[in-house]
Amino acid sequence: MTFILTFLGKSGIARTKIAIASAKLLASQGKRVLLAGLAEPALPILLGTTLTSDPQEIAPNLQVVQFQASVLLQRQWEEVKKLEAQYLRTPIIKDVYGEELVVLPGMDNALALNAIREYDASGKYDAIVYDGTGDASSLRMLGLPESLSWYVRRFRQLFVNSDLGKTIAESPLIQPLISTLFNFNWTADNFAQPTNQVNNFLEKGKAAVADPRRVAAFLVTTPEPIEVASSRYLWGSAQQIGITVGGVIVVSADGNHNVTDEFNPLPISVVPDAPAGEWRSLIDALPDFAQEAIKAPKPIEIDVHNRQVRLFLPGFDKKQVKLTQYGPEVTVEAGDQRRNIDLPPSLSGKSITGAKFQNSYLIVSF
Amino acid sequence: MTFILTFLGKSGIARTKIAIASAKLLASQGKRVLLAGLAEPALPILLGTTLTSDPQEIAPNLQVVQFQASVLLQRQWEEVKKLEAQYLRTPIIKDVYGEELVVLPGMDNALALNAIREYDASGKYDAIVYDGTGDASSLRMLGLPESLSWYVRRFRQLFVNSDLGKTIAESPLIQPLISTLFNFNWTADNFAQPTNQVNNFLEKGKAAVADPRRVAAFLVTTPEPIEVASSRYLWGSAQQIGITVGGVIVVSADGNHNVTDEFNPLPISVVPDAPAGEWRSLIDALPDFAQEAIKAPKPIEIDVHNRQVRLFLPGFDKKQVKLTQYGPEVTVEAGDQRRNIDLPPSLSGKSITGAKFQNSYLIVSF
Repeated sequence: MTFILTFLGKSGIARTKIAIASAKLLASQGKRVLLAGLAEPALPILLGTTLTSDPQEIAPNLQVVQFQASVLLQRQWEEVKKLEAQYLRTPIIKDVYGEELVVLPGMDNALALNAIREYDASGKYDAIVYDGTGDASSLRMLGLPESLSWYVRRFRQLFVNSDLGKTIAESPLIQPLISTLFNFNWTADNFAQPTNQVNNFLEKGKAAVADPRRVAAFLVTTPEPIEVASSRYLWGSAQQIGITVGGVIVVSADGNHNVTDEFNPLPISVVPDAPAGEWRSLIDALPDFAQEAIKAPKPIEIDVHNRQVRLFLPGFDKKQVKLTQYGPEVTVEAGDQRRNIDLPPSLSGKSITGAKFQNSYLIVSF
Repeated sequence: MTFILTFLGKSGIARTKIAIASAKLLASQGKRVLLAGLAEPALPILLGTTLTSDPQEIAPNLQVVQFQASVLLQRQWEEVKKLEAQYLRTPIIKDVYGEELVVLPGMDNALALNAIREYDASGKYDAIVYDGTGDASSLRMLGLPESLSWYVRRFRQLFVNSDLGKTIAESPLIQPLISTLFNFNWTADNFAQPTNQVNNFLEKGKAAVADPRRVAAFLVTTPEPIEVASSRYLWGSAQQIGITVGGVIVVSADGNHNVTDEFNPLPISVVPDAPAGEWRSLIDALPDFAQEAIKAPKPIEIDVHNRQVRLFLPGFDKKQVKLTQYGPEVTVEAGDQRRNIDLPPSLSGKSITGAKFQNSYLIVSF
């Protein structure tokens, strides 16, 4: 089982330093670690080495890879072309080269998530430390399995019965394409009632993201009030996409801070504002990530017996949280993200009988 | 004509402060200014006011809006549903509420760009200051008109002749949907040979982004070497999507810096590390954005007479720039973005006869 660790916070360079120190810490504990960063200069400068799109070992147990969206896109494209050639008598895209393809918004996130999924599935790593953008965009990325599976769930039946749905279900290309890319058997019938859903790509991703033994984020901040407010906002936003936030790392030159109340009940680790290259003092101050992640509040708890759903939404006040029930969906809106709660059969379709927001928990009764 | 100004750089809070000071400066000059930020706490805290998804006046000539992707998505959805109801006998999506919709990766960017486009077209503003993510993701967003128009250009003919293309061209919904959303007349025939291309959405967007009187970015950095390297990388990456970078704003507590060579030939403005709320010293140190943008190096110059294309690619060395000619496209790769050069008819389809990279310029001869 691979543990995927990432960091959220306003200060990019501090986050990258913490990611490097964390990767070094985990590698020193004997874990096989992959440190994955974006196509930006900070990570290679801090590591003092050039990075490539394929993992390279920079220390015992420690490999580093740089996600370049243009390279990842090119690789995916070659797979798509192979499929097209196999299934379509008159291929459309065979003359478009992967080397031409331009990266569009959102592709960086989808490609990076897919790359993490593949490294996770490779069985080669005990931990993947992802040094991403650390902002709302990183959360959109980690939320993709749940968000996309909601779109599938919600539009499935509507779509299957439509003309466009029928066209696609009958297309000789689209079916095998989707099956191969997503390991998902998309015939019109299966799409309507997927029997094998738990095994499919999105459900696997959702389950991983929701499991603090598999995926956890930690906040990185200074004691500066605006940064603290931004980190609290990211904390709450992370709950909305189901990511466990395990703790807070406060970068403080003098070791002081006054943020315990702001992040209650999360544990706080204070690390020095270490110059580039001085990893020891940072590493020594880091928490036990896996342990803290397991103890952290769960983003969502569904109590079927008491017909209650409890959502942990720290960093928001009552006015910033909206609960609605339109059509079949129970929707929670907070922090510029909506979450449609995937209710178990015994609660699904039931009307909300009560809701209250207290101690950062939204408690919904059915 | 609206001038759209944005900032690139690693330090989010510094960028937001500069954006606020810039908006105040332009408003004090009598321009009608819209300051647009993301759904994050930094901007409202620094302004000392709550913000909403609709512009509100906070000072004479100065309005502020916060782009909330979930709200923007909901508004777009209502438009799409109206169209569907109008054109489809059996609407598919009429029972899906805008209030349920979840934001996927890339949507933030596309929705923010569309919102900027609408505020630009409203004629209500002389300047829009966009306080975005300031990183590669912001560049993907501003590059969207060019990137997407490349996909349209490249796949148009391939697609029109395909079965899927014919299905969509004949669909009673898709055509009016695309025409309305993008002001683009997409019949199979027009899609193959768009006669009215210059007026369409993407071409308008491309033209605006390429025009330094319409869109300009400025770099914001401290003298810290890793931040300088990151800013140089963003500078080069911005050229790849055709954005003019007008100058550099260096935040320096003591007024010193040593970065003139790093950003040559851009003008450098040094601003103090002012505490939140002390805008005067910041405003006084800001450059004349519009003037500097016009004087800055152009990202691309096409010299039809000498059969040469000159691309300005600062911040990269020769090894980091790749030039290829696959099929009909001349592709430049640098900084995790590819650019397919939209050549004029007299150069289009010609083979490259020579290329050199010197003084940060890639010069391609045909």
